[in-house]
Amino acid sequence: MPYPETTDAFTVTDIKKWSEFKRQEVPLKKFEEDDIDIAVDACGVCASDVHKITGGWGADIPLPLCVGHEIIGRAIKVGSKVKNIKVGDRVGVGAQVGADLTCDNCKANQENYCPNQVDTYGGSYPDGTITQGGYSSHVRAHQYFTFKIPDGLDTALAAPMLCAGLTTFSPLKRLGVGPGKKVAVLGLGGLGHFGVLWAKALGAEVVVLSHSPNKKDDALKLGAQEFIATGENGWNEKHKFAFDVILNCADATHKFDLQAYFSTLKVNGYFHNVGFPDHPLKDLMVQAFGATGCYFGASHIGNRAEMEEMLELAAKQDIKSWVQTLDISEQGCKEAVERVYNGDNVRFRFTLVGYDKVFGERS
Amino acid sequence: MPYPETTDAFTVTDIKKWSEFKRQEVPLKKFEEDDIDIAVDACGVCASDVHKITGGWGADIPLPLCVGHEIIGRAIKVGSKVKNIKVGDRVGVGAQVGADLTCDNCKANQENYCPNQVDTYGGSYPDGTITQGGYSSHVRAHQYFTFKIPDGLDTALAAPMLCAGLTTFSPLKRLGVGPGKKVAVLGLGGLGHFGVLWAKALGAEVVVLSHSPNKKDDALKLGAQEFIATGENGWNEKHKFAFDVILNCADATHKFDLQAYFSTLKVNGYFHNVGFPDHPLKDLMVQAFGATGCYFGASHIGNRAEMEEMLELAAKQDIKSWVQTLDISEQGCKEAVERVYNGDNVRFRFTLVGYDKVFGERS
Repeated sequence: MPYPETTDAFTVTDIKKWSEFKRQEVPLKKFEEDDIDIAVDACGVCASDVHKITGGWGADIPLPLCVGHEIIGRAIKVGSKVKNIKVGDRVGVGAQVGADLTCDNCKANQENYCPNQVDTYGGSYPDGTITQGGYSSHVRAHQYFTFKIPDGLDTALAAPMLCAGLTTFSPLKRLGVGPGKKVAVLGLGGLGHFGVLWAKALGAEVVVLSHSPNKKDDALKLGAQEFIATGENGWNEKHKFAFDVILNCADATHKFDLQAYFSTLKVNGYFHNVGFPDHPLKDLMVQAFGATGCYFGASHIGNRAEMEEMLELAAKQDIKSWVQTLDISEQGCKEAVERVYNGDNVRFRFTLVGYDKVFGERS
Repeated sequence: MPYPETTDAFTVTDIKKWSEFKRQEVPLKKFEEDDIDIAVDACGVCASDVHKITGGWGADIPLPLCVGHEIIGRAIKVGSKVKNIKVGDRVGVGAQVGADLTCDNCKANQENYCPNQVDTYGGSYPDGTITQGGYSSHVRAHQYFTFKIPDGLDTALAAPMLCAGLTTFSPLKRLGVGPGKKVAVLGLGGLGHFGVLWAKALGAEVVVLSHSPNKKDDALKLGAQEFIATGENGWNEKHKFAFDVILNCADATHKFDLQAYFSTLKVNGYFHNVGFPDHPLKDLMVQAFGATGCYFGASHIGNRAEMEEMLELAAKQDIKSWVQTLDISEQGCKEAVERVYNGDNVRFRFTLVGYDKVFGERS
C-alpha cells in the first residue's frame, strides 16, 4: 500500500537503537481539501530530531517514527481549497503541519502557540494519524503550513531555514533586533549560525559567544563583528551591560553560569533560548536577574508571516546557510544523527539529499 | 558623638539573634553639598529587611546594622547644591541612596542598575562608611535619592511606597500595564497589595493568585476583579493564555510549579518577579517557556522618574496602602520583623512610627 496511502520512510523503531533507521511504509493522514502532497527532495537534520529519537525530551514517542522537519520538495497534488500553491511548485514545510486556525492564538497570528498544534513528526491529527517527517518520500501538509520557496534559494541550503532558520529569525524580529542593536549569539551550531546570518541581515551588530575559541574564524566569516570565548571564569567582566539580546542557541544551558551571561545584558535585556536542553537549569536564583533587570525566555518556531519574511530576506540578500549534504539512506541518516548527537564537526547543518536516487522521481 | 556625626539607631548586632535590636549611635557619612539630612518620622518594614538580617540573602552583612528603607521624615539640613528641597519639607528615601550618576545606565535614567549604586542600608560609600537605614533618628541622603512627598499622602501610609510601592510600580509601567491589559498579581503581601493598587490605578484588569483562598476578600476589597486560589493541582487549566503579565510578589518562588503559571500567560507574556527567595528555582526546564513563548525576569526597585510618577498617581487617585503601625522601639522592631518573617497576619505592611516619642523632635 504505497503512496498515496503511505510514505516510504526511514524510521526509528526503538529509542535504544536510535541511529538504526529502518526503511518502511508508514501511513499518511487522509487527504483533505486544504492539503498538499509533497515529493521530498531535501530535509535538514535538526537537533530536535536527535533529542526526539534518543528520548532526551521524553521517552514516550510513537514508533515507528520518521523524523525530519526541514523539508523542501515539489507539490505533486493540491487539494481543492489550496490557493497559492500549484502542482510543480517548489515548497517547504517546517516543524508544524497543523493548528486549529480558529482559537485566539491562531486568530492573532500565533498559530505556533495554538493549543491544538500538530508537530510535523510524532504529533497526531484529530483522527489519530501520527505525523511522519521528511526522512521519507512524501509529506502531506495543510496549505497554511506549506511555503513557496523563492527562486533564488538553493534547495539544500534553504531546507534548514524551515526550522532552524525560522526558530532563530522569529525571536530576533519580535525582540526588535535591527540597526542600533547589539546581539550576542551564544553557541555556533545549526541554530547559532542562522542567528548570526539573520541578526546581521537585519542590521544589528553581532557578537558570537562560544565556549572554546575554535569557532572564531567561522564566526567572523559568517559576519560577526566580534568573538568572545566564554570558557574562562571572568570572561564577562569586560562585557557588562553590552547586549540588547543574547540569542542562546546552545542546548547545554543546564551547565551554564547564567548569572555571568545575564551580567552582559543591557538593563531589561533578553536572554532568549531557542535550544532546549534535556535537563533542568542549575541553581538559578531569582536574584541573578536583579542586577540587570533582564528576562529569560524561549520561543517555539515562528509564525507564517515570519517564515515568509525570512525566506524573502534570504532570497533578497542572497543569504547562504552553511550546509553539508548527505545522501539519504539508512547509513546517511545514521551518520547524520550520530554526528549531530556527538557534535562531531558539523558546519553547520546536514541536509539529506539524493531523494530521487532512492525513491524515484515521484510525480 | 550624636547627630550630626551619628544617627541614633535600632541595630542588629548578630544575625543569629536577628530580632534583638540594640539601640546605639552609628556613623553617618560625611555631609556633602548634595546631601539632605532627614529627621525620620516613619519607616516601613520591608521583607528585604528580614532577608538581610537573617542572612537569607547572604551571611556576610556589616554589623551593627540598622535596616529600613521606606523612610519618610522632615528635611532638617540641606547641602548648598540641593535644588528642590528645603528645610522643613516632608521627604522620603527608598532603597537606594547613591549611584555614580555618570555611567551609561545613570545617563539613561537607569540609576537603579548603576554598578556603583549604594543601598540605603548595609551598602558602603566610596569613603567606606556603611549606610544605615530608617529604624533610626536620622538619615543622610543625596538629593537625587530624596523625594518630596505630595501633600495629600499620609506619612504612615506613604512610607511603604518608597520601596514596596516603587518595586511593583516600575515593572508594571515598563511592561506597559494599562487599559486593555490583564495582570495577575501572585502573592498578596506587602508587595502584592501594591501590585493590585497600581495595576488597577493604571487601568488594567487585575486578578489575584494566592495559594490559599484566605485572602479572597482582601483581594477584592483592594480592587481585584477576580481571585484564583492556586493550591489545587490543575488550577491553571481554566486560565490558559489569560494574562499579559504575572507580577510575582511572593518570595517562595523556589517551591512553585512555574510551568503551571507560565501556561496562564498570553503568548510572549511576562512572569515578572519582585520577590527574591533565599533558594534557587526548582527543576526549571527551558521547555517550560516554550508553550507560551514567555519570559521570566526580575527587577530592582525603580528609577527616580518612576518614583515621582507613582507618588503623584497615589496623591491624585487618593490611593491608600494598607498599613499597620507600630511604635519604634526595641520591642516594636522585634515584633515587626518576627511577624514579617513568620507571615503572621500582616495586612499588609508595618510602618514604624512614634519617632518623636523616642528621639525627640529633632530639628
